Amino acid sequence: MFGLMQNTPLLISSIIKHAEINHKDSEIVTMAVEGGKHRTNYGEVGQRSAQLAHALTKSGIKQGDVAASLAWNSYRHLELYFGVSSMGAILNTVNPRLFPEQLIYVLNHSEAKFLFLDLTFMPLVEKLAQHLPHVQNYVLLTDRSHMPDSDLENLICYEDFIANENTKYNWPELDENTAASLCYTSGTTGNPKGVLYSHRSTVLHAYVIAMKDNLNIGSRDSLMPIVPMFHVNAWGTPYACAIVGCKMVLPGALMTGENFYNLIKDEGVTIALGVPTIWLGLLHYVSTVKDVDFKKFPIESFVIGGSAAPSSMVKQLEDTFDAAALHAWGMTETSPFGTACRLMKKHDSLSEEEKISIKIRQGRPPFGVEMKITDDQGNELARDGKAFGRLLIKGPWIASAYYRQDDNILDEEGFFDTGDVSTLDQDGYMTIVDRSKDVIKSGGEWISSIDLENVAVGHPDVMEAAVIGIAHPKWQERPLLICLLKEDCAEDKESILSFMEGKIAKWWMPDDVVFIDDMPHTATGKTLKTKLREIYKDYSFPA
Amino acid sequence: MFGLMQNTPLLISSIIKHAEINHKDSEIVTMAVEGGKHRTNYGEVGQRSAQLAHALTKSGIKQGDVAASLAWNSYRHLELYFGVSSMGAILNTVNPRLFPEQLIYVLNHSEAKFLFLDLTFMPLVEKLAQHLPHVQNYVLLTDRSHMPDSDLENLICYEDFIANENTKYNWPELDENTAASLCYTSGTTGNPKGVLYSHRSTVLHAYVIAMKDNLNIGSRDSLMPIVPMFHVNAWGTPYACAIVGCKMVLPGALMTGENFYNLIKDEGVTIALGVPTIWLGLLHYVSTVKDVDFKKFPIESFVIGGSAAPSSMVKQLEDTFDAAALHAWGMTETSPFGTACRLMKKHDSLSEEEKISIKIRQGRPPFGVEMKITDDQGNELARDGKAFGRLLIKGPWIASAYYRQDDNILDEEGFFDTGDVSTLDQDGYMTIVDRSKDVIKSGGEWISSIDLENVAVGHPDVMEAAVIGIAHPKWQERPLLICLLKEDCAEDKESILSFMEGKIAKWWMPDDVVFIDDMPHTATGKTLKTKLREIYKDYSFPA
Repeated sequence: MFGLMQNTPLLISSIIKHAEINHKDSEIVTMAVEGGKHRTNYGEVGQRSAQLAHALTKSGIKQGDVAASLAWNSYRHLELYFGVSSMGAILNTVNPRLFPEQLIYVLNHSEAKFLFLDLTFMPLVEKLAQHLPHVQNYVLLTDRSHMPDSDLENLICYEDFIANENTKYNWPELDENTAASLCYTSGTTGNPKGVLYSHRSTVLHAYVIAMKDNLNIGSRDSLMPIVPMFHVNAWGTPYACAIVGCKMVLPGALMTGENFYNLIKDEGVTIALGVPTIWLGLLHYVSTVKDVDFKKFPIESFVIGGSAAPSSMVKQLEDTFDAAALHAWGMTETSPFGTACRLMKKHDSLSEEEKISIKIRQGRPPFGVEMKITDDQGNELARDGKAFGRLLIKGPWIASAYYRQDDNILDEEGFFDTGDVSTLDQDGYMTIVDRSKDVIKSGGEWISSIDLENVAVGHPDVMEAAVIGIAHPKWQERPLLICLLKEDCAEDKESILSFMEGKIAKWWMPDDVVFIDDMPHTATGKTLKTKLREIYKDYSFPA
Repeated sequence: MFGLMQNTPLLISSIIKHAEINHKDSEIVTMAVEGGKHRTNYGEVGQRSAQLAHALTKSGIKQGDVAASLAWNSYRHLELYFGVSSMGAILNTVNPRLFPEQLIYVLNHSEAKFLFLDLTFMPLVEKLAQHLPHVQNYVLLTDRSHMPDSDLENLICYEDFIANENTKYNWPELDENTAASLCYTSGTTGNPKGVLYSHRSTVLHAYVIAMKDNLNIGSRDSLMPIVPMFHVNAWGTPYACAIVGCKMVLPGALMTGENFYNLIKDEGVTIALGVPTIWLGLLHYVSTVKDVDFKKFPIESFVIGGSAAPSSMVKQLEDTFDAAALHAWGMTETSPFGTACRLMKKHDSLSEEEKISIKIRQGRPPFGVEMKITDDQGNELARDGKAFGRLLIKGPWIASAYYRQDDNILDEEGFFDTGDVSTLDQDGYMTIVDRSKDVIKSGGEWISSIDLENVAVGHPDVMEAAVIGIAHPKWQERPLLICLLKEDCAEDKESILSFMEGKIAKWWMPDDVVFIDDMPHTATGKTLKTKLREIYKDYSFPA
C-alpha cells in the first residue's frame, strides 16, 4: 500500500524558487573577474536565472541539452547552476586545469552546445574552439564594457544575452531523476569520466551537507566555497546555501591567501571550504599580518577536502582562528559528500593530542551513505578500526554508472568501489589507508604504502618517499621503499630501515631501499606511482 | 535524460540500520511505565526492532497490514516505530486521549490486526476490546513480571513475544512511497481522519527537521520529545534522532513539570519539545526549586508546538534557562513540520521587545514546504505581513488525501488548505491570524476573531473572550464578542468596548458584547466555537 503524501519531485528549480521567496535579501558577494567586489542576492539571482533560461530557450536549448562552463566562483556561475538545470538542461562544469586535450575530450564527449566562460579563459578557448564542433555559442561571463577584441566566432556577451528577458520562468515539473549537472573526474590514467547528477541526488545531497554534523549551514551563516564551482559543484554548497538562505562569498579568480583572508575578515565568513593547499596559503598570509586578533573573527569552520591535511595544519588552523578544522571526504562519484570528521561527545574528555588523532581521520558517514570494507574476495571486514579493505559506498547521491560508458561499476549489492582502501571503526569513523592500486599485497595481507611513506619521511635525510609493491615468488608482493634524499645526504639504507623499525609491524618492513634522483609527480603534485612502477618493473629484491 | 545516480529508496529500515551501525552506543533513556529509569541504545533498539519484525511475521503480519499502538514515549514504542514500518507494515499510533467512541472508530477504520499497549491503558482496552473485531492480538508493552491479571483474550507479553527471535532481519527493499505510519487528526467535528505517511515523506521530513534553522539536531544533542509519540509521531523526532544518532530522553507516562525538570537536569537535555501547557507545568515546578542556577543547564532550545505560546511564556523560558524558546507550526496533515521561528541575523540589533514580537510568530518554512495565502476566490495575496488569507501548503511531506476517503483535498496547483488564516511576510515568516472557519467576513474583508479575543481579555474584568461572526444584512457578517467575566465583576459593555478602542482597526470593533456564564470548551481546553454558534444562532444585533 502506498502512503497518501503529495507527489512533489525534488528539483533544483524548487531550490531557487524557495530562496527567491524566503531569502531574497541574503547576499551573494563575488570578487569579480573584472576587478572589484560585486554584491547581489537570491532575489536577483533567481530573476536572472529565469532570464538566462529564457535566453537559452530562444537559442534552441532544450531539456536534456548540455551547456558547459569554464568559470571561477561567481554570481554569474551561480545563475548557470540554477538557470540551466532548472529549465531541464544539463550544466557541465569543466575544470580549466585539465590539459587542453582533456578539455577537448570532455567538451566533445558531453556535446555541450553552449560554452560559458570567464574572461580569464578567453586565450585558452580561442585555441580550443576549432576542436569543438558541438559548441554553437560561446558566452563570455561579463558585460559589454569588458568584451575583448576576439576572432572567436559566435561570441556573445552574457549581460546582453539575458538583458531583455522575462524575470519569471515557468519552470517545468521534471521527473526528479532527470539529469541536472555533469562533472568529469580528472583521473591520472585514461580519459576523464563523466558523472551525471540528477535533481534528486543534488537536492538530497544539499539537505545532508547542511546538517549539523556535516557542514552545519544555516540561514545566519556566511559561507565561502574556495573549492571551485568546477570541482564537483563546489562540493554541493551552492545548492545547500540557497536551501538555507545563507550568505555566499565567492572568491573569483584570485587564489591567494590574502584574498581569502580579506574576505573572511570583511564578509563575516563563518564556514570556508577548500583543499589543504588553500589553507597553507591562508596560514602563510596570516603569519605576515600583525596586530590582529584572528580569534575574534566569526569564522567557525574550515572544511578540508580533496586530500588529507596533516595534523599540524589542523592544529594551526584551529589555534589561529579558534575555529574547527574538519576533514570531509568524498569524490566526484559521490557528489561528493561521503564523510565529515567531527568529534563525538565522548571525545570531549580526551587530550588535545588524542583529539587531533581523531580529527585527521576522514570521518563518519551521514544517513544516506552506506559504507563497507571488503577483502579481495568481496568478504566484508570487521568495523574494528584495524582491519582495512576496499572501501565500498552506496546511496542516493552515489554514481551508478559513468556517462556514455557501458561498464558496470557496482557490485552485486549495488555498492560502488571507491578505489580507496580504508578502515571503519565501531563509531563509523572511516580512515583512508591507501589507494587500492597502491596497497601492497603480501601473503594474503595488505600493507599500506602511505603508512610506510609517512614513517620514512620522518628520517632526517629523506625528502620524499614512495613505496611500491614488487612481485615476490613466495609472498606475492613485498614493499620497495624509494627515497629522494635531501641535498648532500648520503645513501644509507641501514640508517633508514633502522629508523623505521618499531614504528611499523615487523612484516611491513620494506625488503629494500633504493634511491632516486628525481621523483615523478602528477600535475597536481601527487607522486606518480605508475611511472615508478614502470621504472622499477625489472627490479628484483636482493637474494 | 535521467541522471546516473544510484536508485536507493528512502526507507525507515535504512534509518535504523544506519543508527545501529554508526551510533550504536547513543543512549535511549526512558522513564518506564513500570517505574524506574531504563537505559538502552540504538544498537539494542535496532536488534529488538528486528526481533519484533520476526515475531510479527510469524504471527501472520504482512506488508501493508496495520499494527496499532496506545502507548507513551518509551524505547518499546520506538521499537514499534522501526520494527513495524521497516518490515513494510503500517504503524497506527493512536491517541489514548480520544473519546472511547473515537478510539473504536479509529481502530476499526485502520483495521489494525495488532494492538500494542502500555499497562496504563489496560482498563481502557478491556472495555473497548469487544468493539474491535479486527484486532487479533493485544500485546502489552512490558515484561512477564509486570503482566496483570486480565480476562482480555489473546493478550501477549511484549518481552515474551520478541524474546527468542533473531536480532537481524533482512529488511525488504520497499518502494519509498510505501505507507509507513498512520495518524488520525482529532478534529472537533466529525470522525477522525487518517493521514498515511510514506517512507519517503518520513525520511525527508526527518532530514529537514534536524537542520540548523529548524530543530537543529546533531549527534551531540540530547533530545526530549515531551510531545507524545501518538501525536503526529512526536513531530518526527524519533526518526530524526536516529538519523543523527543523538541521545533520546523519553519521559514515559509521567506528565509532570517535576519529571521534565529532573530529566532536563540529569540527562543533559539540549532540546525539549512540547505544547504550551507542558512548559507552563515546567515553569511552575521550576519556581519551587531553590538555589539552582538553571542557566547552567545544557538546554539550548524549547520547541513550542500544538498551539501558540504567549510572549510572556517565551520570555520566561528564555530568561530562566538562557535558552531559545521557538515556535514550530504544523498539523497532522503536514507530518507535521511546516515552519520554525528563529531570528534572522538582521534581527540581532532589535530590542528585546521587538525580538519577542517576531518570536511569537509561527516562523519560516524550510525548503520543501511551499506556502501561499489566498482570498476566497483563490487569488494569491501579497507577502507583505499585512494581507491575510487562507494558508495553503504544498510539499513532499504534506497529505494528498485522507485514508479511505475519496474527497479531493488539494487545489488545482496541488496545495492543501490548512484551514488556517495567516499572513506571510517578505522574509517568509508566517503568522496565524485565525482558523478559516472562525474568521469574520465583513464587507469583503476579513476580521480575525483571535485578535479581537486577545485584546478583549486584556480588560481587567474579562476572564475569557470569544468572538463569532453573526449574519448581517449589509456586511455579510459582523463580530459578536462573548465574555465570561471574572467573579464579582459587573456586566459593562461600554467599558469593554472603550477599552478595545484604538487597539484595533475601527471597522473591526464588535457590534455587540454579550455575557455568558459558562464558556464551552473542547476536551483539550480550546473554546468550542461550534457550540457558541449554536447558542447564538438566533441572536441578532440591536438595530
